[in-house]
Amino acid sequence: MYLDIRKVETISSLGGGPIGAGWAAHFLSKGYKVKSYIHDKNEKSIYESIIKTAWTSLKEIGLDKSASLNNLLISADLNEVIEGTQFVQESIPENLTLKCELYKTLGHLVPEEVVIASSTSGLTMTEIQKLCSTPERTVIGHPFNPPYLLPLVEIVGGNKTSELAVKWAYNFYKHAGKEPLALKKEIPGFVATRLQEALWREALHMVAAGEATPEQIDTALINGPAPRMAVQGQCMAFHVACGEGGMATNLDQFGPALALPWTRLQAPELTTILRNRMVDGCKTMSEGKHFEDMARQRDKSIVAVLNAIRDSKT
Amino acid sequence: MYLDIRKVETISSLGGGPIGAGWAAHFLSKGYKVKSYIHDKNEKSIYESIIKTAWTSLKEIGLDKSASLNNLLISADLNEVIEGTQFVQESIPENLTLKCELYKTLGHLVPEEVVIASSTSGLTMTEIQKLCSTPERTVIGHPFNPPYLLPLVEIVGGNKTSELAVKWAYNFYKHAGKEPLALKKEIPGFVATRLQEALWREALHMVAAGEATPEQIDTALINGPAPRMAVQGQCMAFHVACGEGGMATNLDQFGPALALPWTRLQAPELTTILRNRMVDGCKTMSEGKHFEDMARQRDKSIVAVLNAIRDSKT
Repeated sequence: MYLDIRKVETISSLGGGPIGAGWAAHFLSKGYKVKSYIHDKNEKSIYESIIKTAWTSLKEIGLDKSASLNNLLISADLNEVIEGTQFVQESIPENLTLKCELYKTLGHLVPEEVVIASSTSGLTMTEIQKLCSTPERTVIGHPFNPPYLLPLVEIVGGNKTSELAVKWAYNFYKHAGKEPLALKKEIPGFVATRLQEALWREALHMVAAGEATPEQIDTALINGPAPRMAVQGQCMAFHVACGEGGMATNLDQFGPALALPWTRLQAPELTTILRNRMVDGCKTMSEGKHFEDMARQRDKSIVAVLNAIRDSKT
Repeated sequence: MYLDIRKVETISSLGGGPIGAGWAAHFLSKGYKVKSYIHDKNEKSIYESIIKTAWTSLKEIGLDKSASLNNLLISADLNEVIEGTQFVQESIPENLTLKCELYKTLGHLVPEEVVIASSTSGLTMTEIQKLCSTPERTVIGHPFNPPYLLPLVEIVGGNKTSELAVKWAYNFYKHAGKEPLALKKEIPGFVATRLQEALWREALHMVAAGEATPEQIDTALINGPAPRMAVQGQCMAFHVACGEGGMATNLDQFGPALALPWTRLQAPELTTILRNRMVDGCKTMSEGKHFEDMARQRDKSIVAVLNAIRDSKT
């Protein structure tokens, strides 16, 4: 059985880059003891400077009362880092051979009741866990950069991962102050990166075709869709914008526009199943609130976001 | 010649929906006199309630010292609304026949030196201006909903639009407190909607394929890419995340990933021209700043955004 999530005190963060160090900073801010593995002793000063930068922001967000930078150990000795660990967050380079070798080692080095999560954004756990002798407790725990600020962690197991380990990871991340998202399927790019990647590739197409410059892409996002998306997501943004009829009106009214060349990505067919899923999902998220109240809340939050960005730059 | 932008005092906002009313609220907040055209007198009370809702937020953002709701006239008489106007913002329904008929009328009703801008998100000015006898001063001025909060206005002319009118619109919107973006080409969806639409269609695909629910889409965006995108856009987000090497490192390191199925949208070929445009654009936006300073600014702004959203919901 896996450990009671409330009893986790010591976490191992593997990997000397910004993601590994970012995770270490997050867990330290929540009061955990963190043991960090870096491949090379020379990475230590860069690692420490990332932690220091992160700490400034984490203080602004609010530290746990037992949070301290003294709870951090940095070492190039994997055995030392794993000793006494109760959760492993792995963030080594995105190289399948490297990862497979590491999970082979971790398979016998890390006690079987300790969950191991990978920060990978591009590989699947089914691939990573292939050489691991104890793969049941290995999961994806994909953060968004910077991991000490953005709350999202996408969780999904591989073929050999147990349902229990996925649930444990979900509950643990939640307990440790993150916003976990347990995916329904092991898909390339998971959910958040897929959404961002579609936007990014359309941006690259526009720059390649001379339709927009990088400056115009960023200006458009910052002053247009992004603040609203940060407040509402995209489904609820459309739901609330369409008033009483909500997402149903959006799909019925703009459904034909899905066939227009408003992006190079072709839309899926708007079947009854898809329409119902979208409408039902937005209804659930609305929690019975009237659209006018949701529009007022949207406005209040957008004003707060725009003012916050402006003030943070002075 | 077009009017000196600083001398504009009276604006006509055509269209009784949320976009027309949203524009009216924005211009009122900046101290302009606004004459609003609604198709039907019965639309008046809904129109007024949108203005009232918008005003709450506009007060938070800060009103011009001469701003007043008394500067608003609402009428179903187009002649009355156009009389004495110095700028026309058109936001009637997205129906090409309707728009063409209206621009035919406006062509002789509105003095030739007054610029007419359309809020359309789906049509081009080349199509809209076809029946207009004075098309030189007709441009697209596409806002993002809600137009009284999101600063973006995308500007582009049609085949018969004069360069001067496009420049005038750019300068006028800037003067009137918006963030104008003059597009290089008249493309369907313009820039901001294309970016959003690529993300939206990938979202629909994922919901259709059972890979994610609408709730998961929104959770992923709100807690992952969106707050960072609101602060930095997407080009600069990748540029700053890649440290010293910036966008060049991003494209060299993740270039091969553009071929991976991380979204259903196929990426363009990463040619030297595209790479240089991306790298040069990010260099320009960096204004010589060191990446560590930009990362610190990013973090400061993201913390401000996350705290602002949290506080605005209590």
